[in-house]
Amino acid sequence: MVHPCVTLLTDFGTGDGFVGAMKGVLQRRCPGVAIHDITHEIAPGDIRAGAWALATAAPWFPAGTIHVAVVDPGVGTQRAGLAIRHCDQWFVGPDNGLLSLAASEPEELYELANPRYLQEPVSATFHGRDVFASVAGYLAAGTKARKLGPAVAAMERMVVPSTFRTDDGVQGEILHIDRFGNLITNIKASDVSGPGASVRFAGHTVLGLSRTYGDAEGSAPIVLVGSSGYLEIAVRDGSAARALGGEARVGATVLVVQSSGRETE
Amino acid sequence: MVHPCVTLLTDFGTGDGFVGAMKGVLQRRCPGVAIHDITHEIAPGDIRAGAWALATAAPWFPAGTIHVAVVDPGVGTQRAGLAIRHCDQWFVGPDNGLLSLAASEPEELYELANPRYLQEPVSATFHGRDVFASVAGYLAAGTKARKLGPAVAAMERMVVPSTFRTDDGVQGEILHIDRFGNLITNIKASDVSGPGASVRFAGHTVLGLSRTYGDAEGSAPIVLVGSSGYLEIAVRDGSAARALGGEARVGATVLVVQSSGRETE
Amino acid sequence: MVHPCVTLLTDFGTGDGFVGAMKGVLQRRCPGVAIHDITHEIAPGDIRAGAWALATAAPWFPAGTIHVAVVDPGVGTQRAGLAIRHCDQWFVGPDNGLLSLAASEPEELYELANPRYLQEPVSATFHGRDVFASVAGYLAAGTKARKLGPAVAAMERMVVPSTFRTDDGVQGEILHIDRFGNLITNIKASDVSGPGASVRFAGHTVLGLSRTYGDAEGSAPIVLVGSSGYLEIAVRDGSAARALGGEARVGATVLVVQSSGRETE
Repeated sequence: MVHPCVTLLTDFGTGDGFVGAMKGVLQRRCPGVAIHDITHEIAPGDIRAGAWALATAAPWFPAGTIHVAVVDPGVGTQRAGLAIRHCDQWFVGPDNGLLSLAASEPEELYELANPRYLQEPVSATFHGRDVFASVAGYLAAGTKARKLGPAVAAMERMVVPSTFRTDDGVQGEILHIDRFGNLITNIKASDVSGPGASVRFAGHTVLGLSRTYGDAEGSAPIVLVGSSGYLEIAVRDGSAARALGGEARVGATVLVVQSSGRETE
Repeated sequence: MVHPCVTLLTDFGTGDGFVGAMKGVLQRRCPGVAIHDITHEIAPGDIRAGAWALATAAPWFPAGTIHVAVVDPGVGTQRAGLAIRHCDQWFVGPDNGLLSLAASEPEELYELANPRYLQEPVSATFHGRDVFASVAGYLAAGTKARKLGPAVAAMERMVVPSTFRTDDGVQGEILHIDRFGNLITNIKASDVSGPGASVRFAGHTVLGLSRTYGDAEGSAPIVLVGSSGYLEIAVRDGSAARALGGEARVGATVLVVQSSGRETE
Repeated sequence: MVHPCVTLLTDFGTGDGFVGAMKGVLQRRCPGVAIHDITHEIAPGDIRAGAWALATAAPWFPAGTIHVAVVDPGVGTQRAGLAIRHCDQWFVGPDNGLLSLAASEPEELYELANPRYLQEPVSATFHGRDVFASVAGYLAAGTKARKLGPAVAAMERMVVPSTFRTDDGVQGEILHIDRFGNLITNIKASDVSGPGASVRFAGHTVLGLSRTYGDAEGSAPIVLVGSSGYLEIAVRDGSAARALGGEARVGATVLVVQSSGRETE
């Protein structure tokens, strides 16, 4: 029998051995299960960044994959642990919004309440090992998810800021800054149409979209459609985040102006 | 035949390709063997931190697992290489104390002296590849450990500071600071008993134990029983190491006072 | 059927989920394929460092291994993607020199032009996922490389500086600085012969070669033959890069003087 694979995403770093302990529990529960690290370098407690990375990676895995994600500042408190089915994949982690971008349309939701599938005893501070890795190992080995605990109706959701129309175009904001310093917005490519469109942010106005990072001339910022389908602001062979300084932060406004008319700023 | 899995722990980082070379040797010696990274981010030469991470992770893996650990400032000198059996797992690495916390009760100890199981020639500076990965690959493929070299009676051991009783309670110290800035001590939960117990460190006195990180009020430090069973000092949604500044270092004194009596400080 | 294993080397970091997306595509194309991370911590756009790490790791893997390497500042521009056979391994990545140190003697070279083996549509900014991981997954699953696109005759090559003879000896330079601060040169061990040989760099003169890092006395720099067979400059229990300061940079001159004669500097 080929087991489904398990992915891991945490804010644990690797230097303390916590991730190793999770891998050990997975191997005990499901000997030989393949484990793929997504990342362990989410900044401590940064649920938003963890949710983003999970949503970037998870859809590309095959059906059956079990994703374990742990960015969990509320570990040991009343917040529940969940196993969620979405697009025939399973997502296991705390109910704090971390899973909600990737598993946005849950088909099944269970609270991890059945002690039979947890490490005994469950520590108050390391559910990554005692709850989430344990449950994922059982799932990988063939345990039915409905045995893990009661079905629940809803989960905590992370609020993703929406774009909205202004008199002149579409206003959005920066959602994420990636390792390369690219500023990824919540504005879809389809919001920029027509040759006259321009994008305004942090005192800059960029006319039209580039296709690749290499299309930029010099160090002026460009706007292109990133690999997730949203507009991103980039600088050739450099970091837009660094080039734009303090203005390049998550939440900063980005305005797409469709025509040459005035905008309200 | 299902091979046992191999774990890797080093201070190599990953940017130079050293860890990749070790993985290659493992695949050559035992095609298809599953490799699980524990960490490669131990600070260069920090044997103590490597031993800690290995001891945190290894016990959770199943019997048969082969752990390769390399933090080895004495590479190429007279220090021996070892394969140690402990709790039906194997530990392979330099004889410098690195393995001694995880493999604390060796059932078998062999010096890696048989050149048949080493890379030929053995470089003077990269035993991770030429000795330890090579040997681990042979072990994973079924080689008997007694063929690796002569049995030896003892290994270098890392000294872990003991706690001791004072007139008023138990005195211990900080053993490790984790990624979250939690300060992990050598004091067992059972050393704190009774409602009047308090914990003193770095000019702070904390009354009683909290159960979770979330139990803290504001930014005052709390003390709780960590996932390894020892007392740790934490700050809610923050880093105790940062909050306590220079006093929060490995080796700093922590005092558990059992009653309201005087203590000798 | 046992699939060959796939290695990954990128400058993506892991925090954004890009590497996870590549692993997902690989699992979709070739369910169960083993994936081994070489590194994702190459500095953004540093093709030279990526080529170095790949050349350090790849030769140790068994025949059949498929190496995917992506350090690709020109993504989406006219630069081609390649699959290269070298020593019965496959190398998949951009044609920008990144593969040229490891796959230095190509036996077959194909341009990745056949859309059937790419993610549909191919994004302009993430060929790691849409081109290279996709192609590697097909290769791992058994697709013949000649189906990937037209055979090509040559690839971009990274220029590795040569050593040259001077009146007194051999002049080379620093090629790479590793995590430990060791300075790795392009001078072969065989260029240093005779008991009178000395090595000059950054105002220092070191007489003779040491065998191990532990051979150094105090904090004076030593020269030894590193694990790749080239001379490297090291400091015991410390970083030569830090000890030598600004002089210890990639490209800095290193001179091996064979006798006690004068050298021209």
